[in-house]
Formats: sequence, structure tokens, C-alpha cells
Amino acid sequence: MPISLSSHGSHAAVAADGHALLDRYRAVRATSVALAAPLSPEDAMVQSMPDASPAKWHLAHTTWFFERFVLAQRPDHRAIDPAWDTLFNSYYNSVGPMHPRPQRGLLSRPELAQVLDYRTRVDASIEALLQAGDGDDALLQRIVLGTHHEQQHQELLLTDIKHALWCNPLRPGYRDDLPTRAGLSVPLRWSSTDEHLAEIGAATWPAAADFAFDNESPRHRTLVPAHALASRPVSNAEFRAFIDDGGYRNHDLWLSDGWATVAAQGWSRPLYWDDGLEREFTLGGMRDIDPHAPVCHLSYFEANAFARWAGARLPSEMEWEAQAAGKPVGGNLLADCRLDDRRPDNGKHEGYFLDECALHPQGSMDAFAPLQQLFGDVWEWTSSAYSPYPGFRPMPGALGEYNGKFMSGQWVLRGGSCATPRRHVRASYRNFFHPPDRWQFSGLRLAKDLP
Amino acid sequence: MPISLSSHGSHAAVAADGHALLDRYRAVRATSVALAAPLSPEDAMVQSMPDASPAKWHLAHTTWFFERFVLAQRPDHRAIDPAWDTLFNSYYNSVGPMHPRPQRGLLSRPELAQVLDYRTRVDASIEALLQAGDGDDALLQRIVLGTHHEQQHQELLLTDIKHALWCNPLRPGYRDDLPTRAGLSVPLRWSSTDEHLAEIGAATWPAAADFAFDNESPRHRTLVPAHALASRPVSNAEFRAFIDDGGYRNHDLWLSDGWATVAAQGWSRPLYWDDGLEREFTLGGMRDIDPHAPVCHLSYFEANAFARWAGARLPSEMEWEAQAAGKPVGGNLLADCRLDDRRPDNGKHEGYFLDECALHPQGSMDAFAPLQQLFGDVWEWTSSAYSPYPGFRPMPGALGEYNGKFMSGQWVLRGGSCATPRRHVRASYRNFFHPPDRWQFSGLRLAKDLP
Amino acid sequence: MPISLSSHGSHAAVAADGHALLDRYRAVRATSVALAAPLSPEDAMVQSMPDASPAKWHLAHTTWFFERFVLAQRPDHRAIDPAWDTLFNSYYNSVGPMHPRPQRGLLSRPELAQVLDYRTRVDASIEALLQAGDGDDALLQRIVLGTHHEQQHQELLLTDIKHALWCNPLRPGYRDDLPTRAGLSVPLRWSSTDEHLAEIGAATWPAAADFAFDNESPRHRTLVPAHALASRPVSNAEFRAFIDDGGYRNHDLWLSDGWATVAAQGWSRPLYWDDGLEREFTLGGMRDIDPHAPVCHLSYFEANAFARWAGARLPSEMEWEAQAAGKPVGGNLLADCRLDDRRPDNGKHEGYFLDECALHPQGSMDAFAPLQQLFGDVWEWTSSAYSPYPGFRPMPGALGEYNGKFMSGQWVLRGGSCATPRRHVRASYRNFFHPPDRWQFSGLRLAKDLP
Amino acid sequence: MPISLSSHGSHAAVAADGHALLDRYRAVRATSVALAAPLSPEDAMVQSMPDASPAKWHLAHTTWFFERFVLAQRPDHRAIDPAWDTLFNSYYNSVGPMHPRPQRGLLSRPELAQVLDYRTRVDASIEALLQAGDGDDALLQRIVLGTHHEQQHQELLLTDIKHALWCNPLRPGYRDDLPTRAGLSVPLRWSSTDEHLAEIGAATWPAAADFAFDNESPRHRTLVPAHALASRPVSNAEFRAFIDDGGYRNHDLWLSDGWATVAAQGWSRPLYWDDGLEREFTLGGMRDIDPHAPVCHLSYFEANAFARWAGARLPSEMEWEAQAAGKPVGGNLLADCRLDDRRPDNGKHEGYFLDECALHPQGSMDAFAPLQQLFGDVWEWTSSAYSPYPGFRPMPGALGEYNGKFMSGQWVLRGGSCATPRRHVRASYRNFFHPPDRWQFSGLRLAKDLP
Repeated sequence: MPISLSSHGSHAAVAADGHALLDRYRAVRATSVALAAPLSPEDAMVQSMPDASPAKWHLAHTTWFFERFVLAQRPDHRAIDPAWDTLFNSYYNSVGPMHPRPQRGLLSRPELAQVLDYRTRVDASIEALLQAGDGDDALLQRIVLGTHHEQQHQELLLTDIKHALWCNPLRPGYRDDLPTRAGLSVPLRWSSTDEHLAEIGAATWPAAADFAFDNESPRHRTLVPAHALASRPVSNAEFRAFIDDGGYRNHDLWLSDGWATVAAQGWSRPLYWDDGLEREFTLGGMRDIDPHAPVCHLSYFEANAFARWAGARLPSEMEWEAQAAGKPVGGNLLADCRLDDRRPDNGKHEGYFLDECALHPQGSMDAFAPLQQLFGDVWEWTSSAYSPYPGFRPMPGALGEYNGKFMSGQWVLRGGSCATPRRHVRASYRNFFHPPDRWQFSGLRLAKDLP
Repeated sequence: MPISLSSHGSHAAVAADGHALLDRYRAVRATSVALAAPLSPEDAMVQSMPDASPAKWHLAHTTWFFERFVLAQRPDHRAIDPAWDTLFNSYYNSVGPMHPRPQRGLLSRPELAQVLDYRTRVDASIEALLQAGDGDDALLQRIVLGTHHEQQHQELLLTDIKHALWCNPLRPGYRDDLPTRAGLSVPLRWSSTDEHLAEIGAATWPAAADFAFDNESPRHRTLVPAHALASRPVSNAEFRAFIDDGGYRNHDLWLSDGWATVAAQGWSRPLYWDDGLEREFTLGGMRDIDPHAPVCHLSYFEANAFARWAGARLPSEMEWEAQAAGKPVGGNLLADCRLDDRRPDNGKHEGYFLDECALHPQGSMDAFAPLQQLFGDVWEWTSSAYSPYPGFRPMPGALGEYNGKFMSGQWVLRGGSCATPRRHVRASYRNFFHPPDRWQFSGLRLAKDLP
Repeated sequence: MPISLSSHGSHAAVAADGHALLDRYRAVRATSVALAAPLSPEDAMVQSMPDASPAKWHLAHTTWFFERFVLAQRPDHRAIDPAWDTLFNSYYNSVGPMHPRPQRGLLSRPELAQVLDYRTRVDASIEALLQAGDGDDALLQRIVLGTHHEQQHQELLLTDIKHALWCNPLRPGYRDDLPTRAGLSVPLRWSSTDEHLAEIGAATWPAAADFAFDNESPRHRTLVPAHALASRPVSNAEFRAFIDDGGYRNHDLWLSDGWATVAAQGWSRPLYWDDGLEREFTLGGMRDIDPHAPVCHLSYFEANAFARWAGARLPSEMEWEAQAAGKPVGGNLLADCRLDDRRPDNGKHEGYFLDECALHPQGSMDAFAPLQQLFGDVWEWTSSAYSPYPGFRPMPGALGEYNGKFMSGQWVLRGGSCATPRRHVRASYRNFFHPPDRWQFSGLRLAKDLP
Repeated sequence: MPISLSSHGSHAAVAADGHALLDRYRAVRATSVALAAPLSPEDAMVQSMPDASPAKWHLAHTTWFFERFVLAQRPDHRAIDPAWDTLFNSYYNSVGPMHPRPQRGLLSRPELAQVLDYRTRVDASIEALLQAGDGDDALLQRIVLGTHHEQQHQELLLTDIKHALWCNPLRPGYRDDLPTRAGLSVPLRWSSTDEHLAEIGAATWPAAADFAFDNESPRHRTLVPAHALASRPVSNAEFRAFIDDGGYRNHDLWLSDGWATVAAQGWSRPLYWDDGLEREFTLGGMRDIDPHAPVCHLSYFEANAFARWAGARLPSEMEWEAQAAGKPVGGNLLADCRLDDRRPDNGKHEGYFLDECALHPQGSMDAFAPLQQLFGDVWEWTSSAYSPYPGFRPMPGALGEYNGKFMSGQWVLRGGSCATPRRHVRASYRNFFHPPDRWQFSGLRLAKDLP
């Protein structure tokens, strides 16, 4: 398995990146701990629904990933606690049994402090391995993969804890020091494109140097139809107009499954809006809704219904990527965790701190940019079902369970959100969720056909 | 609503087809009655699961479609029974409330005889309308649509009654006079195609003369990647090898949702196979499995897992259509209902009879044809999620609920089956079902990437 | 097994009753057929919920009981159709597998005509056996038991078909020739009793000559507390006052499980009342509610809540029986099926006809009787959980599964209803249903403590 | 409401007990804290199933009871946190809305430390009230009731945390210092009683001086039939024989609902036994099963099936109480929390400590006692459905929701367990659970009919 994974890689190239990888590893690992820092042991244990996981589980599972797929590949490895193998496996059937997902919130043991200690011990081993330079390409690639995997869980940790705290009638915030800022009223404009052949997707990693998940590959030609893409995401004010126009009560606007979901769940507004439609729950607690900020926490069904109501449609993921390709990644994303020598030592991750970030979608401050907020703020639902690209090959072995086996019944989202780590997302990045899911930072951008 | 539906149609063209439409109407309507003829009133009432409907309901609903969307458009129409409007509406929210789908099997009234009488009365009105030539284009188009709608229900009537009878431990057959024939052992060959731009889909009806459902339009360019398509569907013998190799117990082969379904449902073989894997339930009762006939009654999950096991994949619907386009529609389909002057009068539908047909997939008799059984025998699961084509527009008004609102969570099947009316299917035809569905005549054809 | 069943019986006594048993057998069997006569084959197949069964199934199961427990005990018996053994077994684990109860409505085969023919064939064998006098006591006792078993199913046939027809939005009646009659306004009076030791229950059959189910035995002493029993059942007008007073919205009145059921089911009135509270569904179709007739189709939860609202309580089954003991069985019950020589031959059951009966609860015509309507009209919920009497012994063998194994989670009802055969009920008779069940003819009579 | 509650009480009597009540209050409150002391904040938050509650919730809810029903009755009371009223209400519809029971485990806030602080604050107010002697009888009675209520929750805290820790595959113990002791092999003997009139139940509190819950009253005569009661509970060895004899696979032994539960849940042994039948989970972690200790963690269904297998039956609650009445309460119960001047100060509850206790059923050390272990070790399932006694009156107002509204679908258990506070249980005490419940310390004692 390791052989085939590294078969196209270049040892020289990876070795040259040894230091870069160590830096990346440390920053990513420090970020997870920083994100969990505002949480009490009790907060870190809540699992509010089967789709979500406790923060403690995220901290442990991402660590288990390095232990199981990197450290345990070495003959001299001794499991830190063999019983944890079952507890912190997520869905890798190949590597053994799993604790049932809906029962992750029952795991009072190991305690949060033990999990943090587990992180420290695995970090020490991985860092030693990197510093010694004695990992083969396959192991180094797995470490690279592990850091990207952990960044995914950083966003989930935030969306899961947001949902968990919202389930508490006290509506406690995750942090009370998050910056806020009101956006401008930015008119919606359209960016048009003629029909053309485009190349989308990422070259296959690790044969190619730049990391990409297997589901982004191979890079391939596609025919992009003539279309126009909206200059910015749909705003809260626009979505409020949809509600006020009876959008949630007009079956003509909805997919059949969506209409059934609206009825079964009693939906009448985005997930975290209160019933007065003026305030919403955020990671900073209850706040007034900014009318100019992108609307957020919508299901695919709601995004699709809104687009129909607006006389438009969702963009396909090919349309989205063709327009985003080449644009720099930036915007309202999860800030970087950086080393700062001036900062006092703070223990395990001394010297690391998280740049200030909003952890909530924000309205634009630029009324004239032709195509903005592609990255950050909200994930944008596309009209594309999550399917393999032509020529798709899953990663070999257990890691092949990473992406490909979920290619049924989900829809692609693009662009990242205010909770996506800045160095994690890219134009070819494919996120995917089920059509009724609303607890991610998910919104939409409109598109329309051109004749 | 009628105006926009007919806006691109040509009155002259439709009028010229007046006689052809009357012939088509009569043949289609006679076919439904002929298909129900072997059923007792009790058989015609069974609903074995929420997804299926009683035969009596199919007979009534297809008639209601003509009453509601054709006859009721005329100012002088008086409802045959206003209460039936609710009973026989399927899912048209726009035209009023519906009897809950899972409770269709509770409708002992109206009795089968009343439903057959209902058919006769509506037929008389429609035929009079057609003979008088006083329908405008919109009405004539709705009659055209109604006949295609009814043909869809003919196949459902057969698949639903097959499931209903199978649920009875007595395993009674639908008919005991169905012809059987063993197929040859036909080696699998591959038909290769280079990457190319193709036009797929159907021109939009009724602007275009030839009927197609709205989901087949508009006709549009697509980029077909280099690939090879198998010369015939996967056979029972090949699927048996998958079972014998532990296919149902190897999670590596399955999509995550598929693996969960296998566990939850206890699947270990195609729907109608018995546990000895030698016999299967057919519309003619229990029979030996023909190893050379196409495997049938597979879910998408099983088709996908088989393809992975075989080192191949499912074709996309574009690949399938690009290869099928231009080939004549023929094969093991539901035979035509025809007028035969030599036959004695048989009451309501005097002179009509169904050509002999197998109502079960059959193995090929041609060991050398390069690409065969594209039409008939089994619907072929594709790798394409059921989504709108670029530029898709649903039909206006209530009829717009026909196809578009189901474009979520389903997969496209192509080619028709042994239960699909011969004059109903075409190369651009898109059928769609949920991934766990197995009660349709669904199988698969392999494809593979070419470098 | 047969030996022990008959061990205390007297052959002479049973033999002397040979003719009486033949008469009883014929009358009971004719009654079932007469009750099914108004039903079409389709009506006879509806199963509207798992708790109910199709009329055809009742006809077949009661016949199977005689075949399985009488005819099949004889060495020369050949099963009429071995496959039916599974289809028509209800819950006798000891005698083999069962068709799943919720799927009884899927059995289009055997057809109703075949089931009626099955009845004829079994009747011929049983009647021959009785006429020949060659059954031992055990067999004769099983025939006796079979007739009482069949009478239970006669009531279920009526309550099940009532529910089935009500599920059809057309609200068709079971018969349109049922007699109706308005009751008088009868003031409620109380019948008081001092604390005393009473003997209740029935002597154990077949040791005792008179038939009683095993759950009615043994006869035993009990201490009846001082109490008062209402002179008649609660009326529709009285229950309407409970509704008008907000009874369904006041949690103080309800058991915890009852309050949860009210919320989950959205209950606001008795099962068959329409939302205007003026009309109700009956076996004769929709009718005006008679304010003076006993309220009917209540769950235990509703009966209990009403009693609390009224400042009273439900009687215990001991209190009820102590007051009913010795009173003649009569009133608005299911009429007898009798032989009438003057009637023309009507085929299988020539000469039998059902006396006229209302098949709906009726108000009293006697304003002064101190304790009336104990039998007939509505089953009366008691405050007694369905439990074994001290010294209870189930019948031996498979027949022991008849009653005892249901002694958990149900409540006792007493007195019979308008759908209970007149010769079936008695003072010691214990009916039992789950607390949310409402589709039986179930009402209540109030009781109260005396100091 | 307070008036009627105290209407029969004697002010003098209560006042005389002022000091005793203060002592009782302090001891009970200290016990709860002592029971929670071994738990981490995370342990205290687990809710393993809807029927169970987190330890933190028990600590808070019992405190809320005093705040809501005692302190809030006084005009000058200001809620400690008004939002908590909803969080910590259990099922008192009368006093306002409730946080949904299955979501108690989501409440990471308030934190455990805040809940402990809440306890301290309420304790200060209650103790001040008691010391000042300015509560009227009604308030004092509510304090008495609150202490008994809290003792119930002490047992639930232990059974709930046992289940919670067992759900963790690590199987952590609650404490690792619990004493263990093997029992003797004690032959089963029978204690016979003739039919007789007995008085059972407790005199109605607070009219009577001794506390009893409303469901134990009024004291009343009952007829106890002739019967024999086993000298001790059924042992693990005896239950193992039932398993080895195929008890879980023999439908003849089971109630119908029980058999369905066995199938649905896959039961094959008591709740906490492992699949080798040699070891069991205890509050002290995994341990060898003591064959002579009482079998524990059985459902009513299992107790009933065992009794049938043993050729016996369960005792009625009247039989149990008639034999237990007058016997001293003692045995393996939850030890007292006592004040000890010699102990060092331990903060909030200085000077209190829990006597040593086993927290697990133990075998008897007395092979000759005629009737032993009536109190403690395991709750004993009886054959009595949980119903009101003749003349039962619930407590007035909101407190009337305490017991009476659960009188449907549950069975009575008697005698207390190893987790029941010693000063909480008595001969007339009625515990009640649903028939499939197994997470309480529930076992059985056999009875049999005498002729």
C-alpha cells in the first residue's frame, strides 16, 4: 500500500520540503488546540446530533489518524492505548471496528486532558520522525494528508460546537470576543461567459507536487456552457424577501424531497435565525442579522428553492471552478495559526496564536468588484451531484475510503467559509453534504443560462 | 398555461396527426386494460410498499390524467366523480390535495369494475374530442403527453404487481403462459470511443414535432471522454461469480450508503433470487435462473459494487446516449397492442391484442453483435445523478411538476426493459430511481476509462 | 395435550350436547358468512393498520383454527393446502411460522371465493365428525372453543372493516339498511355497594360444564371496596361537554402516556367524530351524533381523563362483575343467526339469517332503570390492568397461547358491545386492549369511592 | 394549594421535628454530593439513553425542586437563574415548559461547578428557613417531600451513571474501592401463608406523621390468597441454569410483548453480563459473577419468564407487603451519610461521610433465615401492574403530578436495592418501571399458589 501511494512521488522533492512540512504540521496541530481552548471539558463532549461530533472526539480522531496511518506503519510502534483504536476510528472499515457514530457523545473517558496529552505524545513522535528525516515518501505523504484531514475537522469542530451550543436553551456563545462588522449594500451584477472547453480539477497528488484530495482529480477537460455568474453570494436581505414572499409555503419552488423536508421539519427560515427574523445565533452568541451579509446555514433544498424564486439557478461546480480558477485564495476564512516570537510561552504550543477572525459571514466592503467572495464567508451550494470525475481513482488501501465511497446522494459545495482554514481551500476543492444539511456555513451564489 | 404550452407548436402539424393520435390513444389505452386482464379485483388492489401502487390505481390515475388535464380544461366539463380528484392525483400539488401515497392499497372503493367503467367514459369523451377535431393544440399536446404518461404507468403496473405477488408466500405468477427461451453464452467485448464533442438530448417538445419529456431537453453539446462500453449487459452468471467471490460481504466494493443498506436490509443476492441462487421469481412464477440472461432487479448500489469488483465502472448517461444515438429501438420490450380485424370482438377494446412478449430479460441469441441489447431486457444504471440539462425548462403549470421536481437523490437509467412499451423508449429517454430501488427491471452494462 | 385438556371433562356430558354443539357450530359459522356478505372481494382485503385484519383473513383464520386444532389432530387428515398453515396462523408460535401480521392485507390469493370454499370444506368435515359422534372429549372441547374463538373474530371483523372503510375518503358505509333510533335523555344515578367479599370469575372449563375462557378462571374470592357505580354509560352529550371544557387540552386530566399520545396523534375528539363534532362515521356511513347514546371509540386514556374531569373514576373489573353477576345478558348486541324454515334457500348456509341489529350504540329507552346497558352498546373500560387471576392456569399446549401471553400492558373492558354476539358475552367475560386503542366499540361507565 | 396540603397536618408535630428535619436535609443533600464526587465533569454529563439523566442534571433538578416548590412559594424569592426553571423541570406540566428529556445530555452549561454552587446557595436558604422556624406546615412538608424526592434521584444517579459508563467500550468503573464479598450457597425454602384479610399501604401523609408517597395510600384492606413466598431472591446460578436450558429461546415461557422484545433487542442474558456469562459490569468495573448473589438487571419480561420456567410465579405486591410488614428495614442498601466530628473539614459538606457500602447485590451469609433479603440487594418485580389503591388521591397542585400520572403500563417493584438509601425505603414503598426496563438493580423472588 505505501509503495503504490508513493510510486509516482519524488523522494527529493518531499525531502526538500521536510522543514516546510514540519512547520505546517506544527501550525495545523496548534490551530486545533487553539480552537478548542474556549471550551470547557463539558462543552467538548456534547454531540447534538449523529451527524456532528464532540470537539474532544475531533481532537482525538485527528491524532489517531497520525498514529494509525503514520506511526503504526513502523514496526517498532506500540499503540498508545489499543482500545482507543476503536473509539477514534471514524469510518475506515479496513482498519477495524468503530464505536457507533451516534454514541460519540457518551465517551466521558478518556477525559479532555487525556486527549490533549495524547496529542502531545503523538506530536512528539511525528515531529521526531520529521526532524530525523527517516520517513520514506509514503509516510511523509501520509503526514501531508493528515494535516489536510485535520483542517477539515477544524471546520467541523466549529460547526459542530455551534450546533451543540445552540441546542442549549441558554444559547451560550463559543467566544464573546469575536469582531463584528456590518457590510455595505452591494448591488448584484452578472459575470458572463461564452460556451468553452475548460480544464478543471487538480493534477493527481502525490504524483503532482501540490496537494489535492483524490476527488479533485484527475484534471480533465469539460465543456462549460454559456452562462452568467452572480458577482456575490445571496444576502440575508434577499433571503428575507424570499421568506416574506411566502417562499417556504410555495411548493412550486421546491424539489419534491425538499418540500417533504420543509413539512417534516417545520422549516420557515434559515437554521439559526430566531422566529422574529431579526436575530440569529452565531459563534459569538445571539446577534442582529446583518442584511448585507451572505445568508448562511441553508440546505441545498433552500438554496435551490431560492434560486428558482429568483428566476435563476445554482451554478454547476464546473462553472464555478472555471470562473474561480487562477484567482487568489483570500477573504473571510479561518485565520492562520502563526508563530510569534514576541508572545509569551503558552505551554504545549508555545508561540502559536490564531490571527483574529470573524467566524461568521460578513458583507462585502467593496461595492464594485465584479466577482467577489468566491472564497470564504459561506460555502456555495452548486447544482452538481457529488460524483467521480472521469478517470477518478481513489487512494489505495484504507485511505481510499476517504472520499470516493460517499459519492451518492450528496451535492458539491465550493469556495470555503468563514470557518475554513485559509491554507486548506483552493479553486478545485470539492466539499459535499446531503441536501437537507444546514449546520455547515452554507449559502449560495446565483447563476443563469445565457442563450 | 395552455397558451404557453402550445406557443411554439404548429396547429397544422398536430391537426395532420389527428388520426395518428386517435390510433395511438386507442392502442395505449387498450394496452393498459390488457395488462390488467389477468388480475382479479383483489390482485388489482395490493400495494406492497409505499413506492408501489395497486394496479387499479394505475388504471384510474392514468384516466384521471386525461380527465383532469384535458377534459376539465373545457368549460362544459362535469367531473365524473369530484371525490376521485383527490383519490387519483399522484403528486400534482398545484391541482389540489392528494390521498396519501402509502394508503392507495386501502381503496376498496371505487371497485375495479367502476374504474374500468371510468376508463370507458373518459375514453368516449377523448375519442369524441379527437374525432370532432375541435381541440386546440394545447389540448392535443396534453393528449399526446397523457399517452406517454400512461405508458410509463404500464411498466409500473407490471413491476408493482410483480412485487405484490412476490410478497405472497404462495408466490403466484401473474400469467402462466409467458414464453421462455434460454440465451447463448456471449463473450463480453468492448466498444471504444475517443474523446469527442457530442450532441445529446432531444429537441424541446412541442416546439419540435417528436415527443420527448422535458427532462430530455434541450439538446446540447457535451464532451464525451475516451471510454469503452461493454457489448452487452452483465449476465446472471457473471453476477453469480460476484456473489460467490464474497461481493456482498466486502465493504471495499461498496459506496458508504450502499454498505449501510446491505447491512440494514440483509441483502445477499438480487431481489427476486431465492436463497439457493438457482431460481428466481418472475411474472410467470418461480423459474430456473438462465445464466446467460442479463442480471436484473439490482439497486444502483449493487450495480456500482459489481462494476468496481469487475475492475470497471458504470457508463455516464452521456456515454450511453452517444453510443445509442441513431440505433433503431428494438429488442425484448413490451410488445405492441394492435388492432386485428380477424380477432373476435372482446368487448370494450374490441379487436386489440397484445403481441406475444416475454416480460422477463432474455439472453442474447447473437454471439457476435458489437453492441447489443441497448434497448429492452433491463434498464441500465448509469453513473449519472439525475440532474437538469443545461438550459432545462420544466413544462409550464401543473405539468411542470412532472419531472423536474424529482431531480435530487436519484440516478439515471437508460434503454428500457422487457416491461417498457416498445413505442415509449428512445435513445434520449431518461428514467430515474433512488439508489436502493430494486423492484424495477434494472441491471447494468459496464464501461471503462481509456487513457 | 388433548388428554390433559379433557382430563376433567365428562364424556357423557359432552356427548349429550352433541346436537346442541352441531347447532351452535352451524349458527356461528353462518353468522361469519352473513357478516361478510355485504363486502366486495376488494373490501374483504383491506387492512388499514397492523392491529386490524382483512375480513377475508378473519374468515380464513377462524376456519384454519378448526382445521389445525381439530381436523389435523386426526391421523387421516390431509391438509387442504399446507401453505395456508402459515398464512392463517395468527400468533401460535407452537404450531409453526406465521405470515407477518402487518402484511395480511397483501394476500390477494387465495381469493375470497377460495376462502369461502375452504370454509365449506372444513364445515363439511367438522359437521360429519359431530354427526358421527366419533370425536373424543378433547376434540369436542376444541370445537366448542373454536366457536367462541370465531365469535371473537366476528366482532373484530366488524370493527376492522369499520376502520378500513373510514380510511377511504369516500367514507362508504358497510350497510345502508341499518336501523337507527334516538335515545332518551336519561339522568345519571348511582348504585352503591358496601365493602364485601365477593366471588368473581368463572369455574374452570372444561372441568365445569359452562364454557369460559381460561383468563376468566379460577373463580375466587375478592374484597370489593365500598363504591358506587353509575346507572348507565357516559353519553355523547356528556363527552361533548368534556371537549367543550377543554378536556383534550388540560394535562391535569391525563395520564402521562395519555398526554403524550394526545400530542403525538393530535387527538381532539373520539375516533370517528368529524371535526364539527356533530356527525360521526358508523357502519351505516356518516350520521348525526345522538347526544343520548353512549359515547364510543374512546381509548383508555380518554376514558380515564373523562372520569377524572367528572370527579369520578373508572370501576375496577371486580366492582363491575360483582354488580353484573346474575343479571341476564341482553341489550344492544350482535343479533343471533337463526334457522328459519320459512326462508328460501340461500346456498351454503340455507335457512340461516341474522336478526335485525343496529351495529351502533344506542341511547336507552328507559329513564328509570337503576343499572342498565351493562351488556351491549359499548365495551366499558375498567381501571384494572389485564393480569392473571390468583391460581390462573393457561390452557395446555398451543391453545395456552390464547390469552395468558397477552397479560402485559393492556386494560380490561367489560360487558360487550353492539358488535358482540349475544351468545358470546357473560358477566365474567374479560376483554382487553392497549390503552391507546380506539377502534373497538369502547366507552365507559363511571364509578366513585364511598367513604 | 399549600393550604390543602397541610390541612390535616399538625403544626405542633412538624415544629417539634424542626431540628430533625434540618439534620435530615443536611444528610440527604450531602449524600448526593458525595455520590457525585467520583465523577469528572464529563462523566457527570453523559446521558446514555432517554430514560436516564446525567448526574449533573440529577444534582440540579433535586435542587430546583427545593427552589421551585419551597423557596419560590415565598413572596420575596428571586430566582437564582430564571432560565434554569425550564432546564431542570422534569415533568411538572403545571409549572411551565420543560427541556426535552432526551436532550439533557446536551447541557454543557451550566457547568458542574455552577450546579454545585447552585446547590450551596439553595441549601443556605433552606437551612436558614429551617433554622428561623418561619416556614408554615405546608412549606415544611414540601421540604420533607423534597428530601424523599432527592433520595429517589440518588438511586437513579447511580443506575444512570452505571449505564453511562457501561456504554463506553473502555468499561470504566465508577469507583475502584468498593468492597466485595462472596455469598454462601443458600437453599431455597418457601414461606407459606393461608388466605387472609390484610391491611396494606401507608396512612395518608401528611395527615399521618410518617412520610409516605401518595401512591402508598390509603391504607386499606385486601384479601391475600393462600400462597408461598421464596426465602430469598433468585440467584445468578439459578438464572444461569435458565439460560443454559434455552430460556431465552423458548417462546412458551414469555409474554407476547416480552418475546417480541427479546427478538428486537437480541437479549440472551442479563443487561450487564458479558457474552461468556462469567463476568459482569458493576459500579466497580468488570468483575466475576458471584453465583450465589441475587441475579440483577432483569426486565419484568425476564423475571416473568424465569418464574414460569421455574414452575412458579411472581408474588403480587400485596403478598409481598403482607409478609414484609413489620420486619425491620436493613440489609445491603445505600449506606447513610453521617456527621463525624473526627473527620477533617471537606468543604461544603464538612463532616459528612458515606458509610461503606457495596453498591452491588451480594449473596446471603445466612443459610437458615426463613425470609431474607426482602430489603436491599435487588428490587423485586411483582406481578402487580402499577395502579391506584382504592380511594387513592394524588397530592394537590403541581405535586400531584408526582406519582399518579404514571399509573399505566408499568409494574410494581418492592424492597429496595443496594443503591436505595437506607432511610428511604419501607414495607409499603412502591417502585415502578416499564416491563422492558433493565438498568435498575432489579431482580426477583419467586412465589407460588397454594391450593
